[in-house]
Amino acid sequence: MSKKRGKQTYVIENDICIKNTYSIAGPEEGEGSFKDYYDYLLEDDLWECKSYEKAEIKLHKEVIDGVLHKECLANNDIDCIFGGDLLNQIIASSYSAREFEVPFLGLYNACSTFGESLAVASMIMDGDNMEKVVCATSSHFGTAERQYRFPLELGTQPTPTSQWTITGAGAVLLEKNNGDFPKIKSVTIGKVIDYGVKDAANMGAAMAPAAYDTIFNHLKDMNRTPDYYDMIITGDLGKYGLDLLKHFAEEDGLQTNDIFDDCGARIYTKDQNCVQGGSGAGCSAIVYSAYLHKELLAKKIRKILLVPTGALLSRLSTMQGESIPAIAHAIDIEI
Amino acid sequence: MSKKRGKQTYVIENDICIKNTYSIAGPEEGEGSFKDYYDYLLEDDLWECKSYEKAEIKLHKEVIDGVLHKECLANNDIDCIFGGDLLNQIIASSYSAREFEVPFLGLYNACSTFGESLAVASMIMDGDNMEKVVCATSSHFGTAERQYRFPLELGTQPTPTSQWTITGAGAVLLEKNNGDFPKIKSVTIGKVIDYGVKDAANMGAAMAPAAYDTIFNHLKDMNRTPDYYDMIITGDLGKYGLDLLKHFAEEDGLQTNDIFDDCGARIYTKDQNCVQGGSGAGCSAIVYSAYLHKELLAKKIRKILLVPTGALLSRLSTMQGESIPAIAHAIDIEI
Repeated sequence: MSKKRGKQTYVIENDICIKNTYSIAGPEEGEGSFKDYYDYLLEDDLWECKSYEKAEIKLHKEVIDGVLHKECLANNDIDCIFGGDLLNQIIASSYSAREFEVPFLGLYNACSTFGESLAVASMIMDGDNMEKVVCATSSHFGTAERQYRFPLELGTQPTPTSQWTITGAGAVLLEKNNGDFPKIKSVTIGKVIDYGVKDAANMGAAMAPAAYDTIFNHLKDMNRTPDYYDMIITGDLGKYGLDLLKHFAEEDGLQTNDIFDDCGARIYTKDQNCVQGGSGAGCSAIVYSAYLHKELLAKKIRKILLVPTGALLSRLSTMQGESIPAIAHAIDIEI
Repeated sequence: MSKKRGKQTYVIENDICIKNTYSIAGPEEGEGSFKDYYDYLLEDDLWECKSYEKAEIKLHKEVIDGVLHKECLANNDIDCIFGGDLLNQIIASSYSAREFEVPFLGLYNACSTFGESLAVASMIMDGDNMEKVVCATSSHFGTAERQYRFPLELGTQPTPTSQWTITGAGAVLLEKNNGDFPKIKSVTIGKVIDYGVKDAANMGAAMAPAAYDTIFNHLKDMNRTPDYYDMIITGDLGKYGLDLLKHFAEEDGLQTNDIFDDCGARIYTKDQNCVQGGSGAGCSAIVYSAYLHKELLAKKIRKILLVPTGALLSRLSTMQGESIPAIAHAIDIEI
């Protein structure tokens, strides 16, 4: 029988659980809301490397190593690494994967790549192919600023709608296991949505329509209302983007209070002056790996819809006057 | 029962067939070895667009449209588009996906992305999730040259080991169907392999070790010798890379004559002066979509191992003195 529900959602029938996680966070994130939850904190975002890019490659490698060590696994105990990041040609993922001698599948849906990796890996595992895989994504403030916007040396001022690309990486180990771990119960694959936003410093507005489209279709496909979940948490809409998302939902009569939240809006404290909050392919990855996973294990929450969000622009598309298409994938995680 | 064989290979148990294909080739490719096989030939590689990047986005969109029209399918008849390309942040795939209102999964393993898309899609479909999907990849000489090497306006001379990035895109429709079409029987996911090659104008040497590693492991996992296949055809090693691949195989005592071949080495004629041959994420995609698929349908060949190859560098990694890691995925296609 098909596992498809509605147009975009797939039920995961086997027990595909998130067995363990590992997270590394940068100095700014280490002073943020989840500072007590990360596995490792960087004191310096170059981490003894010669460039920010090499530091991001190291971040990516170390989180994969970290989750394997936690589980006492050797590299060849896992079937595959699924990874992605924001660097051109996802070099953080590819160059870290070369250290492991393990099959590698590179993914790119911008900051929603963590969601994409969980969706693709869990669907493959549900078909009795792979049994144990690692999904990892990363981002770095220094690499993202100079690649998408301006070199840090320019000292450019953030605009009122801007977000702060988080420095950090998160890795999760997925395993077929019927134990008492958070399980991926269903996934909704997002469509590319573009409302015509052209401001590369307003990612929240560019991504909120895609986030809402995916959440709306997930709820419709699964015949649920938002209160089925303890939390519907997007990846990196930031505060302004989260407001827009709630606005869309409330226009359709959906209940958003105490349910809708956003990793980017939560990751920094009010005192940190990070404007609308965090963003980046590492954002939902470290918030899940560090905070949400532990909350699920402690059963403070039992059902979450994690919706990593991505803006599919590049510097090239911005320079050629294009608007910013966006995408979001929804992962239903329950314990 | 697990569908895994050995360490890297997965048997596809359901009838996942390549139901149809569509290919568009650029002006140079349109004078090459497969000129009579492409569905559509460009007279001009800007294709009435304002930039090469916009032309590549159009290429990517038109091949997806093309394969849907051939099969009389509406956009929402398919479950998902799997796509990737070489542009920063895979904008050719993402911007074309926004035209379809269909779930989208972006992939990136450089020029091996066509193989990655077939592997990921067929494993997902084999798990009774999706039933009908499109896989598409593209590349463009103008966008790749200025992104990875030099702007065309500089008139830079090709070096003796260089390859010519093909302009073109290919799309295939995968469907669960037990009819008389080429079927994906097994897939081998590649590891990232780096022999320390640093010359970005010698992709063949950088990728040949990864191609051989994947082919060797595929044959071992499936307990086969090369002559099981009518053809073992890599993606874009070029002539020099193909020689290296054969050298590795022959050192291990494998038979390579009349079996090993390469899409990049074949795509241009000798008179075209394209040095070692073609390369790019579109290379294996158009050679399969245009030529190999028709040869399989006509039963001139019945079993091929298609092994798209990718060099995982970016301009950034080259500028930071890094060597070039590579990857290859093997797709066993039989009729």
